[in-house]
Amino acid sequence: MSDIASQEKATSLASPLDSLSDSLTDDMREVNAAILKEMQSDVPMIPQLAGYLIAAGGKRIRPLMTLAGTLLFEGDMKRAHGLSAAVEFIHTATLLHDDVVDESDERRGQKAANLIFGNKSSVLVGDYLFSKAFQLMVADGSLEILRILSDASAIIAEGEVMQLGTANNIETSLDEYLAVIKAKTAALFAASCEVGPVIAGADAQTQKSMHDYGMALGIAFQIADDILDYKADQEALGKTIGDDFREGKMTAPVIFALENADELETLFWQRTIQDKNQKEGDFESALEILEKHDAVAQSFALAQTYVSMAENALPAAKNSVMQEILRSLASFTLKRAF
Amino acid sequence: MSDIASQEKATSLASPLDSLSDSLTDDMREVNAAILKEMQSDVPMIPQLAGYLIAAGGKRIRPLMTLAGTLLFEGDMKRAHGLSAAVEFIHTATLLHDDVVDESDERRGQKAANLIFGNKSSVLVGDYLFSKAFQLMVADGSLEILRILSDASAIIAEGEVMQLGTANNIETSLDEYLAVIKAKTAALFAASCEVGPVIAGADAQTQKSMHDYGMALGIAFQIADDILDYKADQEALGKTIGDDFREGKMTAPVIFALENADELETLFWQRTIQDKNQKEGDFESALEILEKHDAVAQSFALAQTYVSMAENALPAAKNSVMQEILRSLASFTLKRAF
Repeated sequence: MSDIASQEKATSLASPLDSLSDSLTDDMREVNAAILKEMQSDVPMIPQLAGYLIAAGGKRIRPLMTLAGTLLFEGDMKRAHGLSAAVEFIHTATLLHDDVVDESDERRGQKAANLIFGNKSSVLVGDYLFSKAFQLMVADGSLEILRILSDASAIIAEGEVMQLGTANNIETSLDEYLAVIKAKTAALFAASCEVGPVIAGADAQTQKSMHDYGMALGIAFQIADDILDYKADQEALGKTIGDDFREGKMTAPVIFALENADELETLFWQRTIQDKNQKEGDFESALEILEKHDAVAQSFALAQTYVSMAENALPAAKNSVMQEILRSLASFTLKRAF
Repeated sequence: MSDIASQEKATSLASPLDSLSDSLTDDMREVNAAILKEMQSDVPMIPQLAGYLIAAGGKRIRPLMTLAGTLLFEGDMKRAHGLSAAVEFIHTATLLHDDVVDESDERRGQKAANLIFGNKSSVLVGDYLFSKAFQLMVADGSLEILRILSDASAIIAEGEVMQLGTANNIETSLDEYLAVIKAKTAALFAASCEVGPVIAGADAQTQKSMHDYGMALGIAFQIADDILDYKADQEALGKTIGDDFREGKMTAPVIFALENADELETLFWQRTIQDKNQKEGDFESALEILEKHDAVAQSFALAQTYVSMAENALPAAKNSVMQEILRSLASFTLKRAF
């Protein structure tokens, strides 16, 4: 995709959350404008690669949470635009670095950036976007927000390293899995939600409630994401499935299936996940075993628990439209998967 | 190396700058303690990998500049300790990411971290250290220092991406080479030097002078580093040489040799650097061509120019010991190479 084409694409919203966020369309346009402006560089490969990923139609779910959280407590939306861009840059940087990490073939239905541009560029452009995120926060000037997002960034990196330890380890417990997804995914959701009340100068309790909302939502979101990798009907929608299985990632469906596995099934998971010794038809067998043990349904129930936790955490606020958006966001994370 | 062994190693200074920095020994010990403390994590691989690189006996040249700059203008040394650790973390993060990038076999005489721990871990632990650097700055609380170091971080990433474009391109001009090393190396030197006067509340002119000093010093340092890669006598000292040549990096010695190349030599550089088609004995031929055109001497003269610029940029200050250290640091960058 040419540089210009990708930038044009990025100016359109193209988010599956559009229906939720009609009242935020103008703000989201400002966020996209800030993203486009800040990812520029005299080094052409930077906007090219960043544009490729950012334009790929990300759901902009984290900026949406920052915007909604700011509106909810009547904060300064101008500040929210720049900080939403910062949040999306941190997310994009982790995607770029995750591409290097996961040897994944596709992301969001496109070829992963590192296969087109190379590992080198993915790492370095990720670093650039990460630095840009901090420049945006410095320009905003809130040390509190800098603290929230630098803490989240450290936790994300820890979570990703933790995940290297659980991959291919069939002894991974549900608690260990939850610790990983809290760190690698939910921490940034929580931080994105916390930024709004900080901008608005809301009290500490409100800030904590929004943090808890984002944390629970992020956990539900990641479980739903992990379910999607085992949903055969997703293939019809043009989504890759089976990536986690092929990489030997230990996610909720496999953990639930392992809890109820008979001897033969344990050997199957040992061979395919632990020893990464996979052959034709193994993924189909995995789907059958998951089905037999209701492992996807159990994962869904777990995600549902976190959606309820998110909804209950939402603080009271005057702005009922934004309340509704944040509530819908919670149930949306499950609708994606079912 | 075991986790504990590497941490013990890191507590000793083991820097070739020891003789320069006797008066900073106690401060450097505090910096090392801060580094050890901040690189801890519940995820064991993080201190293990970070310790491997940080303990490898880095020259701690950037923290030294931050400490010296703070002492020079009588700033709060407690603040300088944490911020020196931040500066070293940013540097270590770029080394870890550079390892992924350069496919280099050795760094500081040890196996590159990514060959032992894997690309994945190098990227993610780099991200962790980078985030930690920002946490340390946030804890310090100066938005000005956050600005200086987030700007430098963005410039470093740009420089590294720029370098991808000049590699294997024998058309690279001296100016393009200087733009790359200014960004990828000198920007962090400049930032490290600027932190001291900011801590001390020195005026804008002093701050700029220290920035200029660091910038010129960083350029000289990188040219010297690039010369070392072509100095056969370094091999006797246990240092790898020829890495840049094998990777087809366009550095000062090759650029000067190309300026004076006859037709046959141009074909040689085309084949070895541009087409990366190298065979046994090519590096020795490269050394002969550099010798013939005094390319190393020309590179040295260029570095010398920047050393003089650095010395001239140094602002006047009462602390003559620190003045002397910063002056020696400039000439030291060349002594490494000769």
